[in-house]
Amino acid sequence: MSRKSAADERQASRAIAVSRERLARDIEAIAECSESEPRIGYSRPTFSPAWRRAVDYVAAEAKAAGCEVRTDAAGNLHARPTDLGWAVPAWLCGSHLDSVPTGGRYDGVVGVVVALEALRLRPDAPLELIVFAEEEGTTFGLGMLGSRSWAGTLTAGELAALRNREGESYLAAGAPHGVAPERLASERLRPAAYRGLIEVHVEQGLALWKTGARVAVVTAINGRKQYRCLMSGAANHAGSTKMADRHDALAGAAQAMIALESLARELDGDADHTVMTVGRMAVEPNALNVIPGRVDFSIDFRARTPAVLERGDALLRASLQQAAAARGLDLDLACTEELPPVPLDKALCRLLREAGARLGHALPDAASGALHDAAILAPLLPTAMLFVASEGGISHNPAEASRIEDIELAARIVAEAVRP
Amino acid sequence: MSRKSAADERQASRAIAVSRERLARDIEAIAECSESEPRIGYSRPTFSPAWRRAVDYVAAEAKAAGCEVRTDAAGNLHARPTDLGWAVPAWLCGSHLDSVPTGGRYDGVVGVVVALEALRLRPDAPLELIVFAEEEGTTFGLGMLGSRSWAGTLTAGELAALRNREGESYLAAGAPHGVAPERLASERLRPAAYRGLIEVHVEQGLALWKTGARVAVVTAINGRKQYRCLMSGAANHAGSTKMADRHDALAGAAQAMIALESLARELDGDADHTVMTVGRMAVEPNALNVIPGRVDFSIDFRARTPAVLERGDALLRASLQQAAAARGLDLDLACTEELPPVPLDKALCRLLREAGARLGHALPDAASGALHDAAILAPLLPTAMLFVASEGGISHNPAEASRIEDIELAARIVAEAVRP
Repeated sequence: MSRKSAADERQASRAIAVSRERLARDIEAIAECSESEPRIGYSRPTFSPAWRRAVDYVAAEAKAAGCEVRTDAAGNLHARPTDLGWAVPAWLCGSHLDSVPTGGRYDGVVGVVVALEALRLRPDAPLELIVFAEEEGTTFGLGMLGSRSWAGTLTAGELAALRNREGESYLAAGAPHGVAPERLASERLRPAAYRGLIEVHVEQGLALWKTGARVAVVTAINGRKQYRCLMSGAANHAGSTKMADRHDALAGAAQAMIALESLARELDGDADHTVMTVGRMAVEPNALNVIPGRVDFSIDFRARTPAVLERGDALLRASLQQAAAARGLDLDLACTEELPPVPLDKALCRLLREAGARLGHALPDAASGALHDAAILAPLLPTAMLFVASEGGISHNPAEASRIEDIELAARIVAEAVRP
Repeated sequence: MSRKSAADERQASRAIAVSRERLARDIEAIAECSESEPRIGYSRPTFSPAWRRAVDYVAAEAKAAGCEVRTDAAGNLHARPTDLGWAVPAWLCGSHLDSVPTGGRYDGVVGVVVALEALRLRPDAPLELIVFAEEEGTTFGLGMLGSRSWAGTLTAGELAALRNREGESYLAAGAPHGVAPERLASERLRPAAYRGLIEVHVEQGLALWKTGARVAVVTAINGRKQYRCLMSGAANHAGSTKMADRHDALAGAAQAMIALESLARELDGDADHTVMTVGRMAVEPNALNVIPGRVDFSIDFRARTPAVLERGDALLRASLQQAAAARGLDLDLACTEELPPVPLDKALCRLLREAGARLGHALPDAASGALHDAAILAPLLPTAMLFVASEGGISHNPAEASRIEDIELAARIVAEAVRP
């Protein structure tokens, strides 16, 4: 080993130690910005004082790293090295700081602190940090509002209709934070200003954790179909109505749930994350001694390819019809949302794989079962994602965790990929 | 045919026509006492103005038939022929006028109007009409309050704790209607004052209707076990958590529901009405895109014999444990109520069968899946019930119906059974 490479190694090792410490400090500082006690989880609703403090922390750190900072008309924070200027095509890198109520420390945060650390590690790179506003969808009833508004897929009129629990619209609640509907059109995302988007995010699933992978390249974001399903039978006396004489809507829904679970398992291939979930359910009349007459439930169905989504849709409808018919129930099924699968940019995925390889890491591929701001920008910019392993696959939960060395590896890969 | 028997027949035929008209008029008059529009159903919560009007109607009709009327300290109305007096052992006959919210015209009402008609048909019989207060249990959270209080199985202290939606206790709400806790003990049911109880009720099930039976002798009231079941898994992201990595509490509950349904069918014998019902369910966090972490649901299990209840309890527990274990869920199962099966009085059942036979009707036997005030009094008095067929088995529903000729037949059987 030459003297130079030994010195390089020592310097790299010091840099890594510094990166880990800075990343850990950033995550801790953002975790301290919460509306709820850490014991029950981390809560940063978009435009809340806690969210504001977290965004201000990142802006101050970006400035300290030599950046100029601005907020666009949709409420997203941007930071670029002052010397770079806003006109040069740059790599966009970031994620979100808003959280679900009583969520974890890593969801969204990891992608922001990794972008911050990449700016510190590579101050000469054409790199822009972004903090997307309102990704989760739990504050205004629709997710990815910052990216959708910036991308122009949501109009100011649609934004005006979205309200939080206090009845304030996104536009009104966001006004003190830079949201400016009159400038939405003029400040819309200009693809020419960007080379592409790299979003780093915790996986929120078990695929990496189970295989021991630390960081993976996301090659696709799964598509989603959501449904509202009403099954109606006959409410009747729970004591005097024999089993054979019932039209029990909840028993029908139970049979449908078991069938959908089997169907999702059948449709699922390796790492495809084909999933079906009944998450919401309301039973009527919901009384101990009355056979349920009506059940209203949601179905969330995600798959990697349009073909699986279409086939799954047909099989799901057949399963529900069969479950309803078996008990003489009426079925009313409506598809309430449809988002196609989003393949990510092949060239940019390769660039990330090559950066990983140069750092001595062979990055596996992954599919994202969850939606991300990257899915909104992918049709407009070359877009790719890195996943960082989630301990035990736990997310949207205070127990959410990722290893600091894996987060640091993601930061080094981004810094390597965007080097000029 | 002799002149006398022809005259008898003509008189009987006139009496029947008169009975049907009076019974139909009574049912119509009571239906008009409702807090809700008939279109959505009949609502007579205990102690409501509508309930009061219905009880007052029955009291006035009983007086018109030559009765003296009184209300006991528990709020039950009693009427006896004035000439009979309150001391002579009499047959007790009646049911309830309170209803579930938006219920039907016949539940409870049939047993009251049949007793009224028997008093008219047989003014010389040792017969006492009773209107039990608060049978349904939907107003104060516990059923058969009038009969339980009169029988002494509920104390004034327990009664004081039961409150309606307005927060008023049974004692406070009942005070203007004669409820008097200080007299509960002294006015308690004296078995020596009664020969027995005959309660007529609509079946609220399909057994009679399906076999074409008009009226049946109830030989037993099924026992009941009720449970509260909590299944806990892990709330997680509906998009990124693969099917194999889930601990979906709602999927576990669905599997349990299907298992319980099969179990009830296996346990059920001919006319045994062994039933299991999941009527109430709450899902957490109950969000479209989150795998349910916790489900809280009720189980209502009824069977005819203690042996079936015990065997069913063990199999039900095993089914739930299996459903929970299959998905790595925690199970917390608590039995919240336990009422043993109530065999009805064999001699009194025979008396009713013989009365039916004298009128030319062979009455089949039936079991009651539903609970009734008769179950409360059965340990204290010889008790029997007649069921009147329910059209289509529908009950607790505005579509509830029974044929007026079947109700009239029940009235004639009661009048025949109690003749001096």
